[in-house]
Amino acid sequence: MAREAPQRVWQSTLIGLDWGTTSLRGWLFDEQGRVLERREAPLGVLAVTDGQFAEAFERFCASWLEARPDLPVIASGMIGSRQGWREAPYLPTPAALDTLAGALVSLDDLAGRRFRVVPGLVTRAAGGWPDVLRGEETQVFGLLATEAAASERLFVLPGTHSKWVLCQAGTVTSFRTCMTGELYSILRQHSILGRLAVEPTEADTPEQWSAFDAGVDRGVAAPASIGHLLFTVRSEALLGERAPEQLPAYLSGLLIGAEIADMLQALPTPMPCVIASPGLASRYQRALGRCRVPSQLAEDEPSRHGLFALAHQSGLIE
Amino acid sequence: MAREAPQRVWQSTLIGLDWGTTSLRGWLFDEQGRVLERREAPLGVLAVTDGQFAEAFERFCASWLEARPDLPVIASGMIGSRQGWREAPYLPTPAALDTLAGALVSLDDLAGRRFRVVPGLVTRAAGGWPDVLRGEETQVFGLLATEAAASERLFVLPGTHSKWVLCQAGTVTSFRTCMTGELYSILRQHSILGRLAVEPTEADTPEQWSAFDAGVDRGVAAPASIGHLLFTVRSEALLGERAPEQLPAYLSGLLIGAEIADMLQALPTPMPCVIASPGLASRYQRALGRCRVPSQLAEDEPSRHGLFALAHQSGLIE
Repeated sequence: MAREAPQRVWQSTLIGLDWGTTSLRGWLFDEQGRVLERREAPLGVLAVTDGQFAEAFERFCASWLEARPDLPVIASGMIGSRQGWREAPYLPTPAALDTLAGALVSLDDLAGRRFRVVPGLVTRAAGGWPDVLRGEETQVFGLLATEAAASERLFVLPGTHSKWVLCQAGTVTSFRTCMTGELYSILRQHSILGRLAVEPTEADTPEQWSAFDAGVDRGVAAPASIGHLLFTVRSEALLGERAPEQLPAYLSGLLIGAEIADMLQALPTPMPCVIASPGLASRYQRALGRCRVPSQLAEDEPSRHGLFALAHQSGLIE
Repeated sequence: MAREAPQRVWQSTLIGLDWGTTSLRGWLFDEQGRVLERREAPLGVLAVTDGQFAEAFERFCASWLEARPDLPVIASGMIGSRQGWREAPYLPTPAALDTLAGALVSLDDLAGRRFRVVPGLVTRAAGGWPDVLRGEETQVFGLLATEAAASERLFVLPGTHSKWVLCQAGTVTSFRTCMTGELYSILRQHSILGRLAVEPTEADTPEQWSAFDAGVDRGVAAPASIGHLLFTVRSEALLGERAPEQLPAYLSGLLIGAEIADMLQALPTPMPCVIASPGLASRYQRALGRCRVPSQLAEDEPSRHGLFALAHQSGLIE
């Protein structure tokens, strides 16, 4: 195995980076887009100090660059934000793969290396306010690249800031953010609700799923009451009506339920396709199921397909 | 003045304490309920360590007790919670002044002194979940004690956890909590929204009120979308569409708007009476006005009237 690796690296044509807020993932592609190597490190944008992105990049990709110093690179995610290496301004919707490919931003800090940064997207709600995403566009185009063009697709990307992305005929037409993950996290860590909750020693027990379901049902039924419903985490705990170990699941259900109710009301809903880690995906698929909305699960790491498709479409690789 | 004080203290008949999470306020009453002295200290329940409530009480009231060691005491607020001095279990609604007065809990730790703790209230929403309050019951009965019995009253008590309390003919019939203040605080301090916001150097500028109004209008129009609307604080800042100094007011408007829309939908709405500090009251009254709901402002410190009324009704004083 160790002796084969150098030979495989010689087949490489592209480095793809998903460079987010907290982590950096990289793929070494051959010319058909197959993954020769994959790596990951806690080198997210927030972990890189004093703007030393070039150093972080060269350390992360050292062995790949040693074999092929002229490899082109394409990077998506927060690396293209104002706090990142080079700002790649948000591109307005509707946006197709070729629009995005034509808007890649060149980083010329690295002598002799072609390095492209993928822009985020901006859309405008009917109410007039803007919404933005960065990184998710590459995941969505990665999935669109691997399937037959469907007339309408709805991608659900839960996380710190959940993104629901609507596509028509291969084009991102609009999207909508909900701050579910961050609300959950700050409520758990910093609010009075967190002080009552106990992290369960065993995950995914029937009792926890039952508490999650109760939260989902209430959040779905009254999303406008979420500021009130959140307080039921406290009131039910104070009155001994819900065990401390079940409060995290109940809180999660309330927030996810309210998110889903709002999204289903605000967006057209072809069958949602959930893009998430297995744990998070199972919560969203279960919650969607309670709303009688069947959903699909996307394959893991769609961003690598998106990075390769964008590199190809932009002419960065043949 | 200094020579008169001891004489006035001799007229005292009751000590009333509003003993909350962060602060302790006390009043020395004469037998007509007039305030002889008032004091306040940052001696809230969370600031008292190792359960040394007796020491905190004796220090706070030292000069009052020196003159009249046998003065009876009545205390409301978090001092009656599980984390306080003595738990006074929540009393179910509907609750009238005499029900509450009959449910005061005696603290017998203090040799020879009559010390009563006011219970909180518990109500149950149509959806089946409980809601609780503690301390606000005394403010509400304080206001009810100073006015002619009205058929229906709605009291709005904004704060960390806003309480909207509905009364009929002098009885608290139901109430509803919204976690607005705590959400604002943790979003400002711990979320990605807070990092973009700048505390304005000058308060209450027209620009800030305009940002507040924009938030209110959006929150009122789409309370079910609050998890989405919160993200507009970020997206509008990123796109330069709202100045960093206006983000705190806009965020406040979004949360208060969503709260008001939910409450007006969930509760009957006789003219709301707002009980709050002037700064907070002006925000709520302005936001209610944008919903074309006229409101009244309660007089300051209604809890002192409530404490005196409860002490009287319970027979703690003649």
